[in-house]
Amino acid sequence: MSKAFRELRDALRDFAAERDWEQFHSPRNLATALAVEAAELLEPFQWLTDEQSRELTPATRAAVEDELADVLLYLVRLADKLDVDLVQAAHGKIAKNAAKYPVETSRGTSRKYTDFD
Amino acid sequence: MSKAFRELRDALRDFAAERDWEQFHSPRNLATALAVEAAELLEPFQWLTDEQSRELTPATRAAVEDELADVLLYLVRLADKLDVDLVQAAHGKIAKNAAKYPVETSRGTSRKYTDFD
Amino acid sequence: MSKAFRELRDALRDFAAERDWEQFHSPRNLATALAVEAAELLEPFQWLTDEQSRELTPATRAAVEDELADVLLYLVRLADKLDVDLVQAAHGKIAKNAAKYPVETSRGTSRKYTDFD
Amino acid sequence: MSKAFRELRDALRDFAAERDWEQFHSPRNLATALAVEAAELLEPFQWLTDEQSRELTPATRAAVEDELADVLLYLVRLADKLDVDLVQAAHGKIAKNAAKYPVETSRGTSRKYTDFD
Repeated sequence: MSKAFRELRDALRDFAAERDWEQFHSPRNLATALAVEAAELLEPFQWLTDEQSRELTPATRAAVEDELADVLLYLVRLADKLDVDLVQAAHGKIAKNAAKYPVETSRGTSRKYTDFD
Repeated sequence: MSKAFRELRDALRDFAAERDWEQFHSPRNLATALAVEAAELLEPFQWLTDEQSRELTPATRAAVEDELADVLLYLVRLADKLDVDLVQAAHGKIAKNAAKYPVETSRGTSRKYTDFD
Repeated sequence: MSKAFRELRDALRDFAAERDWEQFHSPRNLATALAVEAAELLEPFQWLTDEQSRELTPATRAAVEDELADVLLYLVRLADKLDVDLVQAAHGKIAKNAAKYPVETSRGTSRKYTDFD
Repeated sequence: MSKAFRELRDALRDFAAERDWEQFHSPRNLATALAVEAAELLEPFQWLTDEQSRELTPATRAAVEDELADVLLYLVRLADKLDVDLVQAAHGKIAKNAAKYPVETSRGTSRKYTDFD
């Protein structure tokens, strides 16, 4: 496991242990909290155009940074509870996606993005 | 930025560039995709009890691992587009949470978990 | 279309027209807003046990009622934009589900709820 | 309660009772299922432009109609469990929104849509 993830994992373990919050951190609860945070991250973008979303105001950007952090924290905590190595899983998924979307047939107008059906 | 995050960021940059997918990766689109993936991660837990969620079958656990990876990939990609250092933001958020939920008043039955109002 | 849905649809049409908000109400934006509201509805439940969720405090129940209303409003508005008759679609879906989950094989421990794999 | 909602509510009560699924339908579980369905409804829109989302292909539109129905079904079921009259709550929310976003100050570029901060 990478140093950065191990440090976050350990900080979150300590945080929960000190507060006796392990009892609330079932995988199910953590997956729910993660989905709620992901929606909070989406909220400031919901009425923006793609263009506007590339030029956030400083206040919106700060709010978004906080929500990005929340998503990462629940993700690290949930992966810890399920004993999943996130970085290894992510690299594995990139390899799967590379096989699923070959460069030659996916350029620019990949089926994924343009042909939902 | 930590090595693990930098490597994932770079792999995702290459992946998008090779497929000319940058055009689809506005922050708004990425935030939407992240929320969709977070809900897919929640899906296998939706009818489980807390207890059952701690003892996933191998097939469910494998599906969950894949969804954890998807969430991390969109998170890293979105943070890259917004120029946010995820690990730094996460440690900053842990510090904020420590101030918000002091150990002495948060033990076991913290307001956060037991008194929504 | 049922009277109750037609009245809500018309009230929302007037609301948007009076404020010149039609421009923001693309199906995509409305689907995003609906998902954000559904997560806000989930939020007060996220740390509750199933039992606790059956006995909400008056303040939580009032907050939940507000979020239920928000979800319905975006649902009616999105269906209007897509020219979908919600009640007819819902009865159609119940019929599909009845075929998918026959009473005799679904009682109590239906595959849907107990055997995710 | 309106006739259309009462009929859906009763159909869902019968459906659950016949399959002995009441045990799974805690408000918490239903709120989770609703959020999962709302994300499934969002999924086909995630890479579309606003313009594309107004001109769905027949196959996408049919998939979307199914997801709209799923959201309504869980919404009606959850409201039933919490003893909330959805239509009354929705009209109450429209009245609140009218007070919050007065026509004269909300036209076209309402704060809600253009100034998240």
